[in-house]
Amino acid sequence: MQRYIIPPVSADYREEPLRLTDDLFHHMIHVMRMKQENRVYLADSTGISFIAEITDIANDTVTLKWVEDEGKSTEMPVQVTIACGLPKGDKLEFIVQKGTELGAHAFIPFAAKNSVVKWTPDKSAKKQQRLQKIAKEATEQSHRQIEPTVLPVQTLKELLAEAKKYTHVLIAYEEDAKSGESSALVETLSSIRKGDTLLFVFGPEGGFAPEEVEQFLQAGCKSCALGPRILRAETAPLYALSAVSYQIELRNGVKEND
Amino acid sequence: MQRYIIPPVSADYREEPLRLTDDLFHHMIHVMRMKQENRVYLADSTGISFIAEITDIANDTVTLKWVEDEGKSTEMPVQVTIACGLPKGDKLEFIVQKGTELGAHAFIPFAAKNSVVKWTPDKSAKKQQRLQKIAKEATEQSHRQIEPTVLPVQTLKELLAEAKKYTHVLIAYEEDAKSGESSALVETLSSIRKGDTLLFVFGPEGGFAPEEVEQFLQAGCKSCALGPRILRAETAPLYALSAVSYQIELRNGVKEND
Repeated sequence: MQRYIIPPVSADYREEPLRLTDDLFHHMIHVMRMKQENRVYLADSTGISFIAEITDIANDTVTLKWVEDEGKSTEMPVQVTIACGLPKGDKLEFIVQKGTELGAHAFIPFAAKNSVVKWTPDKSAKKQQRLQKIAKEATEQSHRQIEPTVLPVQTLKELLAEAKKYTHVLIAYEEDAKSGESSALVETLSSIRKGDTLLFVFGPEGGFAPEEVEQFLQAGCKSCALGPRILRAETAPLYALSAVSYQIELRNGVKEND
Repeated sequence: MQRYIIPPVSADYREEPLRLTDDLFHHMIHVMRMKQENRVYLADSTGISFIAEITDIANDTVTLKWVEDEGKSTEMPVQVTIACGLPKGDKLEFIVQKGTELGAHAFIPFAAKNSVVKWTPDKSAKKQQRLQKIAKEATEQSHRQIEPTVLPVQTLKELLAEAKKYTHVLIAYEEDAKSGESSALVETLSSIRKGDTLLFVFGPEGGFAPEEVEQFLQAGCKSCALGPRILRAETAPLYALSAVSYQIELRNGVKEND
């Protein structure tokens, strides 16, 4: 069954008819050629998701009625944010698409010392818009209920200030992989409790500059390895998100806070 | 330090000078502009890896001497093979590149019922060659010591016969993700012992046909979910490999066989 992300619904969405227009109308009626009585999944990005049935199709509006709430959650029980030093080419698009499938809550691009790419304010707005669209499509495709947010590009200073808001911050450090570090990720993921927030920070292709690592460590963040191999800038976030899902969604769940 | 995959070395590689020609010579001398006394990592794909120093550069041959063995292993302690229903476009190249970084031991493309793409014998040989080259490059880049093998494309029947050779076979089944299955992957990864082999089977974009799943289950394979979200054909193998690495390389290690 097709799935769509829709604008936030009103509190009485179970009783009131729902009218969709523009892109949603176009995709349902012109692309998917849906008819009356066809059903879809709708999710409104605040966590409300339900099955709805088409009751009427007008010129530019499709009307649906609520059928039943979607019983299960496909969202991670903890919010995981992925911060990436601006990588080259379309790698950030790749990270946002795959990272959305793998359950990320938000993405923060940041201007790392080794980032070859620079984003001007004008370019940044367009890029952010495009990445948000990729996140929306991946949300629908992967059957998620909440669309992750792509934040505007940040400086290292801004990211360090942002990092203070998270319960756990891990930076994926290449030198840790080389030296055989193997406990920081497991320790952090095993200690996560319900309602915690987790920020992973990844360098661009050239890795972090030593002074960047130093600043994160001084700010209380931990560094970790993602196994013994050297992962590319666009592969490392996928390892991290998969490990979180494996540990929390399949293996142990999260502990309640005391 | 640059890393190269070289042909198998002789038993006395620590004493005998090593001569490299062709592509290896070209990359070291013309691309990287290496000089006498420069050092590199060399790995011969049988598991031997060491640091070597350039002692002489001739017309078309670079000569190196052994300096010291590489102390640590960057290889997974169990062999994980990834079988993929032929996907569209360059997705298999993507899976081989990222899967190599994440530690896969071998890749098996197979002609699934829902594979839109068909490989003729002629195309198959060229594709295999190209995928093997991608695996080689990713082996070097990710600091691995053994280059994974890309096998020729198989039929479902051949793959089912091949599956009998493995200790554990898991098929990643979309319907398991939808139904909330969450224990099969954890159970299998927790029970892995040293020397075990693990085969993961993934469908193409349209997923497995029900009769394919039936045949795998009848052959004694287990089906599993990779978390509650629906992953694309090219994302699922990366989740699986990351979970194996997290469980075995970071979390628990593997048990010795009794």
